[in-house]
Amino acid sequence: MSKRTDPVPNHPLEGSPASSGPTVTAGARSALASRFIDLVADKLIATEAVFRHHLSSDVPFIEKAGRYLAEGGGKRVRPALLLLAARLLGHDGEEEVTYAAVVELIHTATLIHDDVIDHAALRRGQSTINDLWGNNLTVLLGDWIYTKAMQMALSHGQVEIIQRLCGATLKMTEGELLAFQRLGAPDLSVEEYFEIIDRKTAHLFAAAASIPSLIPPQRPEAGQVLTRYGRSLGICFQLVDDLLDFTARESDLGKPVLSDLKEGKLTLPLILLLPRVQASQRRLIEWVLEDRSFSRVSPQEILDLVAAEGTIEEVTAMAEEYAAEAKRELEVFPPSGAREALEFAPDFVLHRRS
Amino acid sequence: MSKRTDPVPNHPLEGSPASSGPTVTAGARSALASRFIDLVADKLIATEAVFRHHLSSDVPFIEKAGRYLAEGGGKRVRPALLLLAARLLGHDGEEEVTYAAVVELIHTATLIHDDVIDHAALRRGQSTINDLWGNNLTVLLGDWIYTKAMQMALSHGQVEIIQRLCGATLKMTEGELLAFQRLGAPDLSVEEYFEIIDRKTAHLFAAAASIPSLIPPQRPEAGQVLTRYGRSLGICFQLVDDLLDFTARESDLGKPVLSDLKEGKLTLPLILLLPRVQASQRRLIEWVLEDRSFSRVSPQEILDLVAAEGTIEEVTAMAEEYAAEAKRELEVFPPSGAREALEFAPDFVLHRRS
Repeated sequence: MSKRTDPVPNHPLEGSPASSGPTVTAGARSALASRFIDLVADKLIATEAVFRHHLSSDVPFIEKAGRYLAEGGGKRVRPALLLLAARLLGHDGEEEVTYAAVVELIHTATLIHDDVIDHAALRRGQSTINDLWGNNLTVLLGDWIYTKAMQMALSHGQVEIIQRLCGATLKMTEGELLAFQRLGAPDLSVEEYFEIIDRKTAHLFAAAASIPSLIPPQRPEAGQVLTRYGRSLGICFQLVDDLLDFTARESDLGKPVLSDLKEGKLTLPLILLLPRVQASQRRLIEWVLEDRSFSRVSPQEILDLVAAEGTIEEVTAMAEEYAAEAKRELEVFPPSGAREALEFAPDFVLHRRS
Repeated sequence: MSKRTDPVPNHPLEGSPASSGPTVTAGARSALASRFIDLVADKLIATEAVFRHHLSSDVPFIEKAGRYLAEGGGKRVRPALLLLAARLLGHDGEEEVTYAAVVELIHTATLIHDDVIDHAALRRGQSTINDLWGNNLTVLLGDWIYTKAMQMALSHGQVEIIQRLCGATLKMTEGELLAFQRLGAPDLSVEEYFEIIDRKTAHLFAAAASIPSLIPPQRPEAGQVLTRYGRSLGICFQLVDDLLDFTARESDLGKPVLSDLKEGKLTLPLILLLPRVQASQRRLIEWVLEDRSFSRVSPQEILDLVAAEGTIEEVTAMAEEYAAEAKRELEVFPPSGAREALEFAPDFVLHRRS
C-alpha cells in the first residue's frame, strides 16, 4: 500500500488538528500567531524579563534551574491573553506585565509538579527538571515558584487579583488530583473529563483574561465577559492539547505521540470511542492503560482505530465550537486592535501544532 | 554493669534535652505547656475549627486527607505564638484566629512535602500522607494546602501580612533546598547548619510572632521586637528538635531515634563532634550517612560517641542561650499575662519531649 492511498496515515491531521477542517500552512499559522501577539509584543518581551528576573535567588540551585526554565521557552499564551485583555480595557502600565509574568510562573510551577507526577522526562523537546535534578529538588522548586508568583502578585497591592489567582490555582490542583485519581481508568466519563479540564486548564485561562478587569479602575461587567471568554478558550486549548497527542508529529510536540494514553490518561477521542467499539477493540486501549506501555499493541493500531471511528473529527468540532463561543463573547466590546487580536487567539489555539 | 552506673544510658537526657540542665518532670512540663497556652486556649480551639473547616473540598481525596491531618494533631506552637503576640498587642478579634490557622496550614503543607522528600513513613507516631496515599497525591495535596492558606490569609485584605507569609514560605523552601543539596555530606559546617535552620524554621516562627503587629493599628516597632523574639525562639526550637533525635524516646517522638542521621541529615551535635574525634570514629558516622542505615554500626555506638564527647550538652547550652535571648526581647513590653506566657514559650520549647 503506497503512502498516498493509505487510509490511515501516521499523522492524518498534519498541519491541523482537524482533518475535516481547512488545511493551515506553516505560513498561515505563523500569521495567526502574529495577529494574536504582535499588538503586545513589547509587553511580552517585558514580561519575559520579569519572569527571568524573579526566577533568581541566592540559593544556587534555584538560580540554575530558573535559568534553565526561562531559556526553555513556552508558548506564553496565558501572558499574551492577559496583556491583550489589559489593552482592551485601556491599561498601559507595569501592573499587567507583573501579572502576566505571575500567571506564567504559576503555570510553570504546575508543569514542574505535573512532570514529577507523570514521571515525564521530556517537555517541549527538552529534559524536564525532574529528569535532570530528581523529584525532590523539583517538588521544592515548584513550591518556591508558586510562592514567588504570589509574592510578586502582591507587589501592586490588589487583593482581589491575588484572590483570583489563588482560586484558579486551587482549581488547577483539584483538577490534577481528580485526574490522578482516575488515572488508568477505562471508564472515565465525558462529564468527568470536562470537569477535569475545566479545573486544570480553563480556570487559569479565565483568570488570565479577567485579571485586567480588576486593575483600577475596575470593570466588573467586562470581567465577567472576559472570564467566560477565557474559560471557553481554555477548554478549547485543552481539547486541542489532547488532540495533538494523537495528531502531532513527535518533532513538533517534543514528546512521543500517544504519551497521554501511555501515562494512563484517557482523553476525549478515546472516551467517545470506547462505548462504540467491540470488546476486542476496547481491550487494545485497556492494555495500554494497564501496561502503561505499547507492549501488547502498537500506537499505530490505536491511531487506526481512532481514525476509523472519526472521534478526532468530533472532538475537533467541539473545540471549534468552544473557540466560536469565546469569540462571540467579545462582541460586546467596541471594535479595536486588542479585540481583534483576542478574536484571533482561538484560531491560534485551534491551529497550533505543539 | 547496672543501669544506675552506666555512664552512657540509652536516653541520657530523659525528661529534658539537657542532661546538664535541671530535671523536668512530666508534671512540670505540663505546667509549662499550660502557662504557655492557657491564656489563648479559647482562641486555639477556634483556630482548630478554622483549620479543620478550610481543609475541606468537593474533591473527595482532599476531604479525606484533610480530616486525617486535622485529627492527627500537632503541638500548634506557631498558632499559640501568634495568638499570644496578638493578645500582647491588644487584639481580640477574628483576624488573629485566621492567621493562626494559616500559619499552621503553611507548616502542615511543608511537613507534607518534607515527608515525601525524606521518604518518611511516620510522623507523630502516625502514618504519613505519602505512606498512606503515595507521593503523587501528596505533592498535589501540599500544593493545595499552601494555596488555600494564602487564600485564607487574603480574607482580611492585609497585603503586608501575606507578604510576610510569602517571604517566610520562600525562606522555608530555600532552607529545605539547601538541606537537601547537602544531604549525606559529612562536612556540613556549623555556618551552613545555622543558615539552614534559620531559613527552614526560624523565619516562620518570626512571621507567626510578628504578624499581629501588622493587624491595624499597625505597630512596626513592636513588630521588629517580635520578629527577633520569634527568630531566636525558632532557632531554639530547631536545635531542640535536632537534640530530641538523640535524646527522646521513640514512643514520645513517634519515630525512631537517630532518624535524622539515617536520612543523611547531619545535625549540630554531630557537626561539632566530627572534627574532634579520631578518623575511625568519624567513619562510624560516615557509614550511616553513606548507607542510610545502621547496617555497619548500631545507633547505640553513635549515642555512646556523642555522650563521650559531650556535644549534646553544648548544643543544649546553645539552645538555652537562644531561649534566653528570646525572653530578653520581651522586656520592652509592659508586664502582662500575654508577655508572661510568651516568656514561658522558650521554656516550653526547651523542655518538650516530642
